[in-house]
Amino acid sequence: MTTSRIVTLLTDFGTRDPFAGVMKGVMLGVAPDLKLVDLTHEIEPQAVADAAFWLAQSYGWFPAGTVHLAVVDPGVGSERAPLALSAGGHFFVGPDNGIFELVARRARALEARELKPDRLGLTVPSRTFHGRDVFAPFAAALASGALAFGDVGPLRKPTRSELFVEPVSSSTGIEGAVVVVDRFGNLITNLPGEALTDRRRTKVSLCGKTLLIARTYADVPPGALAAVVGSGGMLEVFARDGSAAERLAAKRGTPVRVHG
Amino acid sequence: MTTSRIVTLLTDFGTRDPFAGVMKGVMLGVAPDLKLVDLTHEIEPQAVADAAFWLAQSYGWFPAGTVHLAVVDPGVGSERAPLALSAGGHFFVGPDNGIFELVARRARALEARELKPDRLGLTVPSRTFHGRDVFAPFAAALASGALAFGDVGPLRKPTRSELFVEPVSSSTGIEGAVVVVDRFGNLITNLPGEALTDRRRTKVSLCGKTLLIARTYADVPPGALAAVVGSGGMLEVFARDGSAAERLAAKRGTPVRVHG
Amino acid sequence: MTTSRIVTLLTDFGTRDPFAGVMKGVMLGVAPDLKLVDLTHEIEPQAVADAAFWLAQSYGWFPAGTVHLAVVDPGVGSERAPLALSAGGHFFVGPDNGIFELVARRARALEARELKPDRLGLTVPSRTFHGRDVFAPFAAALASGALAFGDVGPLRKPTRSELFVEPVSSSTGIEGAVVVVDRFGNLITNLPGEALTDRRRTKVSLCGKTLLIARTYADVPPGALAAVVGSGGMLEVFARDGSAAERLAAKRGTPVRVHG
Repeated sequence: MTTSRIVTLLTDFGTRDPFAGVMKGVMLGVAPDLKLVDLTHEIEPQAVADAAFWLAQSYGWFPAGTVHLAVVDPGVGSERAPLALSAGGHFFVGPDNGIFELVARRARALEARELKPDRLGLTVPSRTFHGRDVFAPFAAALASGALAFGDVGPLRKPTRSELFVEPVSSSTGIEGAVVVVDRFGNLITNLPGEALTDRRRTKVSLCGKTLLIARTYADVPPGALAAVVGSGGMLEVFARDGSAAERLAAKRGTPVRVHG
Repeated sequence: MTTSRIVTLLTDFGTRDPFAGVMKGVMLGVAPDLKLVDLTHEIEPQAVADAAFWLAQSYGWFPAGTVHLAVVDPGVGSERAPLALSAGGHFFVGPDNGIFELVARRARALEARELKPDRLGLTVPSRTFHGRDVFAPFAAALASGALAFGDVGPLRKPTRSELFVEPVSSSTGIEGAVVVVDRFGNLITNLPGEALTDRRRTKVSLCGKTLLIARTYADVPPGALAAVVGSGGMLEVFARDGSAAERLAAKRGTPVRVHG
Repeated sequence: MTTSRIVTLLTDFGTRDPFAGVMKGVMLGVAPDLKLVDLTHEIEPQAVADAAFWLAQSYGWFPAGTVHLAVVDPGVGSERAPLALSAGGHFFVGPDNGIFELVARRARALEARELKPDRLGLTVPSRTFHGRDVFAPFAAALASGALAFGDVGPLRKPTRSELFVEPVSSSTGIEGAVVVVDRFGNLITNLPGEALTDRRRTKVSLCGKTLLIARTYADVPPGALAAVVGSGGMLEVFARDGSAAERLAAKRGTPVRVHG
């Protein structure tokens, strides 16, 4: 796999303090011609599941050979391993804490390796900022071609995360859950839009309410609650001109059922 | 017109969820050497008039031949047309909903065309994310030179938007309005600074108050209300160390009069 | 010193209105191949001391020869001079108001010059946006090599700022202060981690409380207050899973003492 020389960044560092910028400085010090693209730095602090969801939704829109640097790392300074993945034609760099779980479940040609800092001659990292001291150097080395994926460290099976459950089908419908709440309060579920190709599945139930599945946001009147297949291909529950999360008191993990 | 290989982005997507990053991935997939510059992703959701204002204020500071991708699109999935403009030495890509109104009113050499997705061999777009599925591919194709402006689709007259009124002059002054409120609560009007070259026009009236026109923010004491010709060349009403919008209960559309 | 063709940006412009983007447009108009990296645009409005702190913490992570454009400029339009520094192998461009104080105190090979707009043939700047009209053109000219540092204007001694005090050592400990509050409410001090190599200094006192110095955030139980040597090498006071600033009612300037 050849590199695209692009690195995406996804963190919970926020944009107020210059931590993301510092990681970019480190990467440009390795290879000044890298293309650095922010996915987001506004993952809720330590919300590994949100990070995993958005990463899995986003990476495939980049050219093959892109390196995706993902740092939401509640365990920084503890024993969790630093990881690199080769999956679905892309590279991923970050902590082994479930952040790559959805990528790994769905991707073809998965290979994971533990990052060994001595492979890059790195000095002992700070105890609080492995994004700068470990992950950014490895992301830049992979993206620039200075280090081959096979040379970052030994093969390692990623720790299986229980953060995500898969939908369950029965004769009466499919049972899933809210996976993430977007910034508008839309409830994105783990139910793929293809599950609706069976025409008899036209309703969504959650929080004691049953909603219709619309074709687009504009199909329902202001204030109404409904569901739609979102741009990522998953079923979303939305309130026209409002927050479905607030209206339904729903959140990550809330059960959602699609039925006839 | 030759391309600068720069694309600016202006949206209401916010920066919490990675939608802007995904559009960048799509564009870099078309041409990895494009230069992508964020203008803002924090336009108030669906505030087309704000988007139109900031776009018109900003684009001319970029090199000629830059492509400006502007996506504030309440009508996504409905019948509004996707548009490209060539205006003032720049290109613009986005929905035909008034977002290019101020650019079009003021620019020389205006030409507008409807985007025809088949010109790029695009598949049917999602119903909710034309930024990713239509506008980003066309912006990248124009910026990279892969597609000439004349080839994006047929000529089309942009829908005239009533979002903006022009100032009206009389023997006693000029009557205009607040066009946008900036993040500090400054009230930016549609009254150009040149209107003040007539020395007798030294006062601004709005919301029942009459204010003096200062040379710079620092000219007035803390807490005072005054007006100034802002960096974009338009008359602005400000409160030193505070929000003029709050102090005056003013907003977009509030009438403003310049007089002697 | 050769340029890295990288320019970092640090301002209090925010990201809602497109002022940072406009500065980038100006710089790309000077040299389209410049690499532009945001440090932050969310410095509190006019908080020169915060800007000075984060700039000093960040710049050294970029390649030598990088230009750091820093615009937090309460005095725009007044008499404060526009400045460029060559310091520690990097260039700096911004107002002479203390924003470069910490860089200047610590850097080797410091040289400062006043920017003379006629050196770039600049027209009279707006009174409110020198970032766009003066600082961005000089930053781009330096970063692109179009102008040598020695040619930006005459040598000038930067105005000494009283924004920062240095720690004071005594036989019983070291007395310092909180320098900045980060977005999590962590209190970053002016006490360097090396001050703790003397093993008898294992406690931190502030706001009437005495805290232990931990190795990493994860070392203390949820809710606890403690100190740690942060990723920038300075002593930080933190509350596990909370804001130390709120818990202690501490802020910039709060005295902090390290002792046995």
